[in-house]
Amino acid sequence: MQIRIGIFGYGNLGRGVENAIRQNPDLSLVAVFTRRDPATLKINTPNAQVCAASEVASFVGKIDVMILCGGSATDLPEQTPALARLFTVVDSFDTHARIPAHFAAVDAAAKESNHVAMISVGWDPGMFSLNRLLASAILPDGEDYTFWGKGVSQGHSDAIRRIDGVVDAKQYTIPVQAALDAVRSGSAPQLSVRQKHLRECFVVAAPDADLARIEREIKEMPNYFADYDTTVHFISAEELRRDHSEIPHGGFVIRTGRTGANAEHKHVIEYSLKLDSNPEFTASVIVAYARAAHRLACEGAYGCKTVFDVPPAYLTARSYEELLATML
Amino acid sequence: MQIRIGIFGYGNLGRGVENAIRQNPDLSLVAVFTRRDPATLKINTPNAQVCAASEVASFVGKIDVMILCGGSATDLPEQTPALARLFTVVDSFDTHARIPAHFAAVDAAAKESNHVAMISVGWDPGMFSLNRLLASAILPDGEDYTFWGKGVSQGHSDAIRRIDGVVDAKQYTIPVQAALDAVRSGSAPQLSVRQKHLRECFVVAAPDADLARIEREIKEMPNYFADYDTTVHFISAEELRRDHSEIPHGGFVIRTGRTGANAEHKHVIEYSLKLDSNPEFTASVIVAYARAAHRLACEGAYGCKTVFDVPPAYLTARSYEELLATML
Repeated sequence: MQIRIGIFGYGNLGRGVENAIRQNPDLSLVAVFTRRDPATLKINTPNAQVCAASEVASFVGKIDVMILCGGSATDLPEQTPALARLFTVVDSFDTHARIPAHFAAVDAAAKESNHVAMISVGWDPGMFSLNRLLASAILPDGEDYTFWGKGVSQGHSDAIRRIDGVVDAKQYTIPVQAALDAVRSGSAPQLSVRQKHLRECFVVAAPDADLARIEREIKEMPNYFADYDTTVHFISAEELRRDHSEIPHGGFVIRTGRTGANAEHKHVIEYSLKLDSNPEFTASVIVAYARAAHRLACEGAYGCKTVFDVPPAYLTARSYEELLATML
Repeated sequence: MQIRIGIFGYGNLGRGVENAIRQNPDLSLVAVFTRRDPATLKINTPNAQVCAASEVASFVGKIDVMILCGGSATDLPEQTPALARLFTVVDSFDTHARIPAHFAAVDAAAKESNHVAMISVGWDPGMFSLNRLLASAILPDGEDYTFWGKGVSQGHSDAIRRIDGVVDAKQYTIPVQAALDAVRSGSAPQLSVRQKHLRECFVVAAPDADLARIEREIKEMPNYFADYDTTVHFISAEELRRDHSEIPHGGFVIRTGRTGANAEHKHVIEYSLKLDSNPEFTASVIVAYARAAHRLACEGAYGCKTVFDVPPAYLTARSYEELLATML
């Protein structure tokens, strides 16, 4: 009996979820829900339906887990609580500062309706969070470091595009190798924002634009760039399309700590990701947690859950016997 | 209210557990149990008792979790089922091929007596197992690699010591850098035993020993060395003590995989450990899982458990609210 999945929202993440479902024979895609005209949407799964978002309630009983693929700014704060009243849901809410408020809103809705609602699934928040928790539980006397990249930051790319005279742009966040090396040495360095990451920008400017002004506006932009060493490259639209059309990302979660009668032994725990496609990897994590959310729901669990609540065995389709014999 | 811990067996691992308990204010050490004469044992925790192993049953009700620090060859197959009849227990059983049989024996004892018994906790099995499971659940279309080292292998060091004319020895297992690089490239190489690890041996020989024969016997030893590129260094007892008295270890769990409509995007998930003290790090993992075992027991769980069964939030003393606000 396959687990029946719905996808709510069909952008990069939604398409990634659709591909990931195809890699997991125990899951099947029932329907994609869109706020666009369903007739205009072509999906890659034969037999799955394309439906208007407004029809979603008619799928109660036909879908086991609804995966929400909207954005964290305005979509998910509204959609996750609303859909948690109808379905087991999973979202990838990633505005770290607002997670406690989102949790509270989703938890209330999920508890009222006896559903499991899993939030903030992906790699950060998600697998990086899990690794921060595991490593700090193992080495209480220690320090945490998270580095991001090399990868495309959508928010920073958007910020550059809003500058007058910019036609298009891609921004890469790059961890500073010297900082990574210092952390891995176990020397527990204090690192400023500037010491941890570089920002590299590839910008397509309008033909008559003042390049010096654009570069200055980027480098001086508060929050986004002013606190970083930033490099700006002006390139053609053709070069941007040819060399910068992918959405890679990744990063490192490192904990260093000490043990022993006199804290004389150092240890380094490192988790890293190198991803050709940020949305497809995020989708792959979400799909594994959708399986876990369904199992929790089948056991009678309800309320808002996170990666911190999931027994790892629930993430895989393999039997427990196989896990003991081949993975433990 | 602190969680009351007992330590059963006081070698390198038992001393590591004692040190780790001191780093966790929610845990307290009640007693160390030994098969030696308790009067001969000096421990580092004021107020904790030293007791004969035979007295352990009298501590039912006074100890919440018994941590078993014996060896996997003969101690744990007997001790873990026996003590699971009396206490919540955690062990670090690490003979991979025998885990299913150990699980079955411990599960029967724990279920009969309604206790939680957590087995095979540490880093491999343990954190490496957890990362193998997580990564394969996220990237079903992919391949797993585990590398060990650089670190001291106790079993291989012991095997050298059994050779005629050898006074003492330390053996280091070392991952081959070229193999690590090939795996990280995502090229999914097939690697032989010899291609993955080197073995480096530091040997103290008796004054009149035939060094050429010892070196040959090491390099030709089946299972232990014959399948590897092995280097042998003869050094003095003083050099061995000065340069090779620590027990470092570590390793890498890497999964590479593909996603996308045509599997066109590659991803690399890597977890690595670099440990100054193998037994102290293992002890630190065990202590975190002892906390989780106690919480599971308090919820009414029973039977044999592994790292695959534990919701990550159970591993830390921090509140769920703090986890949401600072780690997710």
